[in-house]
Amino acid sequence: MADLMQLGQSVLGRQPFSLLLGAELLEFEAGRAVLAITVRDELLQQHGFVHGGVVSYLIDNAITFAGGSVLGENVVTAEFKVNYLQPALGQRLVATAVVESTGRRLAVCRCEVVSLGSDGGVRCAVGLGTIAALG
Amino acid sequence: MADLMQLGQSVLGRQPFSLLLGAELLEFEAGRAVLAITVRDELLQQHGFVHGGVVSYLIDNAITFAGGSVLGENVVTAEFKVNYLQPALGQRLVATAVVESTGRRLAVCRCEVVSLGSDGGVRCAVGLGTIAALG
Amino acid sequence: MADLMQLGQSVLGRQPFSLLLGAELLEFEAGRAVLAITVRDELLQQHGFVHGGVVSYLIDNAITFAGGSVLGENVVTAEFKVNYLQPALGQRLVATAVVESTGRRLAVCRCEVVSLGSDGGVRCAVGLGTIAALG
Amino acid sequence: MADLMQLGQSVLGRQPFSLLLGAELLEFEAGRAVLAITVRDELLQQHGFVHGGVVSYLIDNAITFAGGSVLGENVVTAEFKVNYLQPALGQRLVATAVVESTGRRLAVCRCEVVSLGSDGGVRCAVGLGTIAALG
Repeated sequence: MADLMQLGQSVLGRQPFSLLLGAELLEFEAGRAVLAITVRDELLQQHGFVHGGVVSYLIDNAITFAGGSVLGENVVTAEFKVNYLQPALGQRLVATAVVESTGRRLAVCRCEVVSLGSDGGVRCAVGLGTIAALG
Repeated sequence: MADLMQLGQSVLGRQPFSLLLGAELLEFEAGRAVLAITVRDELLQQHGFVHGGVVSYLIDNAITFAGGSVLGENVVTAEFKVNYLQPALGQRLVATAVVESTGRRLAVCRCEVVSLGSDGGVRCAVGLGTIAALG
Repeated sequence: MADLMQLGQSVLGRQPFSLLLGAELLEFEAGRAVLAITVRDELLQQHGFVHGGVVSYLIDNAITFAGGSVLGENVVTAEFKVNYLQPALGQRLVATAVVESTGRRLAVCRCEVVSLGSDGGVRCAVGLGTIAALG
Repeated sequence: MADLMQLGQSVLGRQPFSLLLGAELLEFEAGRAVLAITVRDELLQQHGFVHGGVVSYLIDNAITFAGGSVLGENVVTAEFKVNYLQPALGQRLVATAVVESTGRRLAVCRCEVVSLGSDGGVRCAVGLGTIAALG
């Protein structure tokens, strides 16, 4: 597990876009990945909520990590979908992705994103997607 | 149409996350919106491709603009899905969203993202989503 | 709750396609609906599995019922998506839909379909969708 | 092409659920499949429209055929999503699926379903999905 976490941190650290957004890998084990972002002004949209693109980035990346934890490092997100539930208003977003099912080459993962603020947590989005092994 | 384009530019200019990514609104008319991003290193993932999160941001925002062009400014993306087709390797990404169908409160929009490079254009993702009018 | 179940049975009984497929409403309460189908040869595809269209029917209908339990009877499925996990090989399919989040006009529901056979249950599909109130 | 059409007819004829619904394969060539169903009372829901499950069956099966036309006969639908646009009120439903992009093992297909009635055609749903080669 320590090795998987190290690998995950290393991959995340080599993603310039994840660094730009300030993503952190909180948990990473076989079948599960948790990513977080601390909200700052640059991540908002015109009404002061976190932009949907930040939320969808979290889902995309969290399910890719979760899928990679069972399929191996060499994976891509084939597809995903997101349903936005509530505006993301908190100070921190946490995306938890789990593997629903896996074969040799494809893993189906779901993810939920919670917005954490002074008044507790609000689930702001749910997602579902397919991760594919390359090669 | 000039007014719609002005409105669109104004909305985009008030989205800090769109400014962070460098998004530009190339076209905006009733039922259609075209957004573009010039690729820079900060937008990449670990293999040198544009991060999927940038592509999904473009789809999310382009369909929201397209939906807003027929439903009014006060809209949110209820849900969307993206299928990644090819790695985004070019110097510029262009997302074209069109309204497939609209009611009073919901518009269904699709979007495709093309990666433009020295060797022409490659369609790197297709998306489909639902925009909802608020209020 | 009894009234909701009666209402649900009545709606299902007025859906000729649900009768053709032999769908049964096992549970129906605020935020949750469970539908089942007993597998028969007419519902299969060419490899002897239950046809994906039967599975997707169950998801579509189960999330519509779940959404209707919180939004009212006059609803439609705006969209849904399904990820197939395993072939449906059992004698009975059970689809359990729950409301993830609801507003005044839209409810987001997820669903899972389990195939029950002599060797226990296998989760064969997961789905996610949006139910919209009419009028 | 004649051989592909023969193969397609043969596969469809071995799908009991497709026979139950009365599906016909109108066109089948590399990258494209067109399926149709003649509406009858058994396929309706409680308001007299064609049940969404019939529409989603058509999308599921049409994209599987389209994907199979480029990946080979041994394929499954990994996932798909559908956005319903209008109630299906006509006498005949026609689903046209095309391959958007294909790799060695995965093909992304989109589909639209048109409802044909005495007053012309109405596009009642659009879909997008991923077909996976087995083995």
